[in-house]
Amino acid sequence: MGPGPCNPYPEVMAAMARPMLGHLDPEFIALLDETNERLRAVFGTENRLTFPVSGTGSSGMEAAFVNVIEPGDVAVIGVNGVFGGRMCDVAARCGAEVVPVEIPWGQPVDAEQILGAHPNPKVIAVVHAETSTGAHTPLADIGAGKGDALLLADCVTSLGGIDVSLDDNGVDIAYSGTQKCLGVPPGLAPFSMSSRATEHIVDRPRSWYLDLNMIADYVTGGQARAYHHTAPISMIFGLHAGLGAVLDEGLVEAQARHQRCGRLLQDGLAKMGLELFAAEGHRLPQLTSVWVPGARLPSGMSEAQARAVLLERHGLEIGGGLGEFTGKVWRIGCMGHTARERNVALCLAAIDELLI
Amino acid sequence: MGPGPCNPYPEVMAAMARPMLGHLDPEFIALLDETNERLRAVFGTENRLTFPVSGTGSSGMEAAFVNVIEPGDVAVIGVNGVFGGRMCDVAARCGAEVVPVEIPWGQPVDAEQILGAHPNPKVIAVVHAETSTGAHTPLADIGAGKGDALLLADCVTSLGGIDVSLDDNGVDIAYSGTQKCLGVPPGLAPFSMSSRATEHIVDRPRSWYLDLNMIADYVTGGQARAYHHTAPISMIFGLHAGLGAVLDEGLVEAQARHQRCGRLLQDGLAKMGLELFAAEGHRLPQLTSVWVPGARLPSGMSEAQARAVLLERHGLEIGGGLGEFTGKVWRIGCMGHTARERNVALCLAAIDELLI
Repeated sequence: MGPGPCNPYPEVMAAMARPMLGHLDPEFIALLDETNERLRAVFGTENRLTFPVSGTGSSGMEAAFVNVIEPGDVAVIGVNGVFGGRMCDVAARCGAEVVPVEIPWGQPVDAEQILGAHPNPKVIAVVHAETSTGAHTPLADIGAGKGDALLLADCVTSLGGIDVSLDDNGVDIAYSGTQKCLGVPPGLAPFSMSSRATEHIVDRPRSWYLDLNMIADYVTGGQARAYHHTAPISMIFGLHAGLGAVLDEGLVEAQARHQRCGRLLQDGLAKMGLELFAAEGHRLPQLTSVWVPGARLPSGMSEAQARAVLLERHGLEIGGGLGEFTGKVWRIGCMGHTARERNVALCLAAIDELLI
Repeated sequence: MGPGPCNPYPEVMAAMARPMLGHLDPEFIALLDETNERLRAVFGTENRLTFPVSGTGSSGMEAAFVNVIEPGDVAVIGVNGVFGGRMCDVAARCGAEVVPVEIPWGQPVDAEQILGAHPNPKVIAVVHAETSTGAHTPLADIGAGKGDALLLADCVTSLGGIDVSLDDNGVDIAYSGTQKCLGVPPGLAPFSMSSRATEHIVDRPRSWYLDLNMIADYVTGGQARAYHHTAPISMIFGLHAGLGAVLDEGLVEAQARHQRCGRLLQDGLAKMGLELFAAEGHRLPQLTSVWVPGARLPSGMSEAQARAVLLERHGLEIGGGLGEFTGKVWRIGCMGHTARERNVALCLAAIDELLI
């Protein structure tokens, strides 16, 4: 129950162990096509350029910026946690003129504030679900007001757990990770880009590995697929199966399960007298942040030691805080196959047992 | 028996399906440390900075260049196949002044020629085992004559299949792939960098995802590991197991098995009257290239159709040619768990059955 990776769905682990196929084998190409179709369903998009980038979530972030940013382009970026800060770093390395919009951690990014930060940005970027704080930034108002800008959304922790609906929200570029609410091990970055955004793809991005000009010929090509790099076959088997599990359950039902578990956990922690970190009304169900109850830990036990006790005694991982909240906040995930009432019950019982 | 992915070792597939661990879990950190130690053994190096990059082999290539090249640096690159050409593209995107040393495909890179191509390069780069041609470029003479340059070697198809011995050969930067002679699915790029090369790591590489300044704190740190990106846990479980299989068999014994199978295949093809493509004396055992026996295929059957027949009839994949040799050359892999006499026997029988 850390902030990811979650426990993968059992059918995912079975799929990971499937016999190997070549990356140009027609059977694999068909499975990749179906994986992309399933990704469109969970992303809520018709975007043709929808596929898993061959790296973890952060490679998706890099692919998002490196393909559309040319030196001097303005990128307005909401910074309400670690991953907003990371986007600034990534965009700057692509040569962007970065306009950060600083928001207190735990709060969502305010639509009016980010839309007013620059008159004519190339990209407006926000983190939909800030894994470092547990805050949820709604996308619709930003999408409605983006004008000529491209709206870029980090959906690493949101996809599968809460509604993302890229097309309805006006999102042009989105990426995610497999190890959060999709219930798959880490290793791929589901990615989607609107046709409007693909017109802005630069001729020769700074990254060869993430160059969408070439990758698109393989991942969304027709009969003949041009080899770019060897696809991570087993991980794609796993993603295909994880998306299948989510869609078999029903995307709405899976999101409702995340909602139910998150509510149960947050209510339980509050009832124990713990104070939630993220702003009320903007709390993610899949990632709960809570102030460390320092005074109620056994004498001499640090918060890191408390987490180690949970891990050793109960096989239960919860995450520490990041940045200036290191040592001050705990982050508890209810994601993918981990988002089950039984796990919430164990977590609450284990923390309760620890407190004095 | 394509040019990779190979069939993974059975213990690798079992490891891929292991229950998930967090990327900061002490049990996982210990497994990562052991994986890196095993990588040092197969790479033949003491390099502290030895670890799997979180992407496929080509991400290792990008990590190799993006971390040491600053705009204007000279990179001398041997081009005797697709992957030498790819290195030129990657290096140029990092801002390198690329000096390509063109060599006919199928031939190795000549040490004297590449050492004489520029008086003072920052990097000299070669592909140890050219997957597109089956040619083997020895490293020792280039390493001995490199002077102040850093020697960068693409070991994607060599690692585990033939001797690489980075330290003995004077290689400063090397990367590989998991899906070739290590017998693991594709998805990671084993990577190693000498302490001499680490002194040249640029402060802020163009890639955030591949920035070794930050990654080193996680992959080779001490007690406390700084989070950079979520490690691809299941793939690392698989790599750990694959390296275990290679080292349990014995690295020398595993290489001898590749040698034996490659020889058996090449002798068998020659005996059938087929003409090998790579230059005699420089043929890789793990990747055999052979001219398509067009006149001996059934009337009207293209080489691609012939390969499709092998796949459908025997479940046997072999690869086509790349670049100007598309449609002219076949590439047959004997790598990892696929490098078994029984597979060679099947392959020879299947091709023999096909020919008229």
